[in-house]
Amino acid sequence: MNVTDAIATRKSVRAYSTRPIDDEKLTVVLNAARLAPSASNRQEWRFVIVRDLKTRKKIAEAADEQTFVGEAPAIIVACADTDGHVMECGQLCYTIDVATALAHIMLAAVELELGTCWIGAFDEKKVKEILGIPEKIRVVSVMPIGYPADPSLVEKKRLTLDAIVKHEHW
Amino acid sequence: MNVTDAIATRKSVRAYSTRPIDDEKLTVVLNAARLAPSASNRQEWRFVIVRDLKTRKKIAEAADEQTFVGEAPAIIVACADTDGHVMECGQLCYTIDVATALAHIMLAAVELELGTCWIGAFDEKKVKEILGIPEKIRVVSVMPIGYPADPSLVEKKRLTLDAIVKHEHW
Repeated sequence: MNVTDAIATRKSVRAYSTRPIDDEKLTVVLNAARLAPSASNRQEWRFVIVRDLKTRKKIAEAADEQTFVGEAPAIIVACADTDGHVMECGQLCYTIDVATALAHIMLAAVELELGTCWIGAFDEKKVKEILGIPEKIRVVSVMPIGYPADPSLVEKKRLTLDAIVKHEHW
Repeated sequence: MNVTDAIATRKSVRAYSTRPIDDEKLTVVLNAARLAPSASNRQEWRFVIVRDLKTRKKIAEAADEQTFVGEAPAIIVACADTDGHVMECGQLCYTIDVATALAHIMLAAVELELGTCWIGAFDEKKVKEILGIPEKIRVVSVMPIGYPADPSLVEKKRLTLDAIVKHEHW
C-alpha cells in the first residue's frame, strides 16, 4: 500500500477483533518506529509491548476506563528515556520524537491491515506502577493495536487546506 | 512506494537541488498532514509555505545559519494555533499533533522523491517576526523540502530493537 493511500485510510480504531497479532507484524511496526528521525538522533523512544490480558485490562482502567484499549490483542506503551532536553526552538525533544515514531507505527500498521488509536487520556503514574516503569521515564501514549472489528472507512472530518495553509507569510 | 519502504528510505536531507517543486506535489504533502490524527481532532496545525528566496534566507539565518535550509526550494514552517491544552497524561496536544502531521509530510515526500529535514534549532521569535506570525501562535519546526542533491541512501544509525523494546513490563 502506498504512503498516501495509507494516510488516507488510517483511522483511529476504537473496536478490535479478538484475532491475535503475529510477532512478525509487531516487529514490522516496531522497526518502523526504530527508523524514525529524532532530535540529534537521540532515539529516546522506548516501547513496552503488553499482550497479557490482565495487564491490558489494568492499563485500560488507567486510561479513563476506555474498555476497548484492553480489548486489542496488544498495547504499545510508548515511553521516553529522557533527560528532558529542549531544542533551541523551545520544544521538548522526547515528545516530538516519540510522536514521530508513533506516526510511523500508525502508518505501518495500516499496511498490515492493523488498526491503532493514540490514547493520551491516561494516568501516567498508574501506568508506570502497573508496568514497573522507573520514575525518570515518561509515558507519552498507550496505543492499542489489533485488527479492526469493522474495517470500513469512516470519513475523516478535517479542516480544508485553505484553513490550515498560508503562503509566504502568516 | 509502500509505507515500510518509505520509512526505510527516508533520511534527513541537508543538501538540495535547485529544481523547484510543483504546486501539486506540495498539495499532496500538505494534504497528508491535514489527514493526520490529532488530540480530540483539534487540528491545531497551521503551515506557512515559504518559496520566496529572500525570506528563505532570513529563515535559514534564524535557524542557526544552517544555509541548506534556505537552499531548498520551499520551507514548510509548521505552526500551532493553540490554547496550550494538555492531555490527561501530561503532554501538550499541539506539540504531538504537529509532530504527527510532520511525520506524514516527511513520508509522503519520500513517495514523491522529495527530501525533508526536521529543524528544531531555530529562534522562534525571529521566525515569527520574519513571517508576521501572531504572538499566540507557536512555531514547532521549520522544514525545508525539495529534491535531494544526492538521492543515494545513507545508512541510518539506530539502536537495535532489543535496546528499545521490552515485553510485558519495563
